Amino acid sequence: MINQLIECVPNISEGRRPEVVSACVEAVASVEGVKVLHFTSDYDHNRTVITFVGEPERVVEAAVRLCKKAGELIDLTRHTGEHPRMGAVDVCPFIPVKNVTAEEIVEIAVTAGKRIYEEAGIPVYLYEKAASAPHRVNLADVRRGQFEGLPEKTKLPEWQPDFGNGYHPTAGITIVGAREFLIAFNIELDTNDVEIAKKIAKTIRFSSGGYPCVKALGLMLHETDTAQVSINFTDYKTTSLYTVVDKVREEAEKYGTTVKCTELIGLSPMKALIDSAAHYLKIRDFDYDNQVFENHLL
Amino acid sequence: MINQLIECVPNISEGRRPEVVSACVEAVASVEGVKVLHFTSDYDHNRTVITFVGEPERVVEAAVRLCKKAGELIDLTRHTGEHPRMGAVDVCPFIPVKNVTAEEIVEIAVTAGKRIYEEAGIPVYLYEKAASAPHRVNLADVRRGQFEGLPEKTKLPEWQPDFGNGYHPTAGITIVGAREFLIAFNIELDTNDVEIAKKIAKTIRFSSGGYPCVKALGLMLHETDTAQVSINFTDYKTTSLYTVVDKVREEAEKYGTTVKCTELIGLSPMKALIDSAAHYLKIRDFDYDNQVFENHLL
Repeated sequence: MINQLIECVPNISEGRRPEVVSACVEAVASVEGVKVLHFTSDYDHNRTVITFVGEPERVVEAAVRLCKKAGELIDLTRHTGEHPRMGAVDVCPFIPVKNVTAEEIVEIAVTAGKRIYEEAGIPVYLYEKAASAPHRVNLADVRRGQFEGLPEKTKLPEWQPDFGNGYHPTAGITIVGAREFLIAFNIELDTNDVEIAKKIAKTIRFSSGGYPCVKALGLMLHETDTAQVSINFTDYKTTSLYTVVDKVREEAEKYGTTVKCTELIGLSPMKALIDSAAHYLKIRDFDYDNQVFENHLL
Repeated sequence: MINQLIECVPNISEGRRPEVVSACVEAVASVEGVKVLHFTSDYDHNRTVITFVGEPERVVEAAVRLCKKAGELIDLTRHTGEHPRMGAVDVCPFIPVKNVTAEEIVEIAVTAGKRIYEEAGIPVYLYEKAASAPHRVNLADVRRGQFEGLPEKTKLPEWQPDFGNGYHPTAGITIVGAREFLIAFNIELDTNDVEIAKKIAKTIRFSSGGYPCVKALGLMLHETDTAQVSINFTDYKTTSLYTVVDKVREEAEKYGTTVKCTELIGLSPMKALIDSAAHYLKIRDFDYDNQVFENHLL
């Protein structure tokens, strides 16, 4: 039997009432085999992010229970907060962790969306890799108009929910999707010329002809007087860390500078780092699934 | 609560009777919370290697149950096989996997040794990091004379067991220890001059003045007409993969050649690889325990 693991990172529209946050986290944790890694509430955003992992079926069950519970306890007609939101469970992405293909994670998200409508009674939009049309891929587009805009938005033929009709009167619409682990990674240059960082960012980012699944900006770090290329890898399996770091090194040299150091913000999946190790150590025929000891424990 | 994980890789002196091997593996697997990763029997050696992991207390319990069962079923007075052996459970090393310090893994091995004598009635030598004297560090020295030599060996004051007296009449002595994960790693040079590989091996290995915890040999791969530096890292936390690979690159250049590729034989702990990724990617202030996603799952 292959042991499959996925992650789910729902955002719920509640970050002020601890008893509501607890009830929602408990709904997730009530599913056997699901492990809540952490949850973090933001008062100003009035929003909580919950991170949990487990086998696909268990994780989907936990997401459904969360939507039921949040639907009971969160009333968006009374919700205020700085972060845009459309549902009691606002956005609910599923992310592959182990032995789950790109196709499978989409199927998992679609199954979850269907069940959320059928069992919690909350209509669902599918986004990112699970999107049913190109105009629904981008989260900001799907969420535009927020909860308050739903009466108008759901009248438009191009904005009918993927599951259900209209919207839930207090819980709105939940936006369910499949995506890869996002890696936030910065590269500091040995220069204070921000123009160089901007030019390099332009070279590597997809939107101006660079690498797929790479977003990048050139920034100035005033505190240390350093130019930085700030990068998001939205799919490290498509474009790897080392590909971009090597390219930035090469470009920096053209501009007469070098890479001083890099910085990983938050978490990275181990595979993204180990792929780089295998590249730089030049390991021939490296078998990630079998040769990394910890892969036998997960 | 900190989740601690260790590995145990006992070798039992039975590789021919499947029913005995099964009974021994079942004795290990009977402990809740212990996961048997694999076991492999060798007919000629008449020996089976079992690999299992879990929390320290659980793993020690499994090792004790294994020694009891193997002591009942394996009679070394009737054992033949190519591999040297001294006990029914011959050698039983404990290896830290997660959140276990070098001091703690020694304590764990000592506790296991004491319990194996007290509960299974089999005397114990401690070796490697758990050794009670310098002449007992090396496994080959401890095992010298094998089971047949025990009547003489255990008369010598310097070879009294660490736990118990003399030896068990049919199960001999079990050699218990603490060590790091051993990584077998080869580096192929872009030359067929084996003398270069031998000189580089001499430069890097500890026994001739190189890096601690590094063993190395220069070899010829006749099939591909390639000179290879074959390396064992006995403690990658003391000397890392990248330190040695970088040194071999530098030395190869001195001899007018380069590193063609490398090869990982068997398994590596993810930390050994991720340390290399952080080195080559130049990640500043990298926090292995917290920033690697999978570390939150183990």
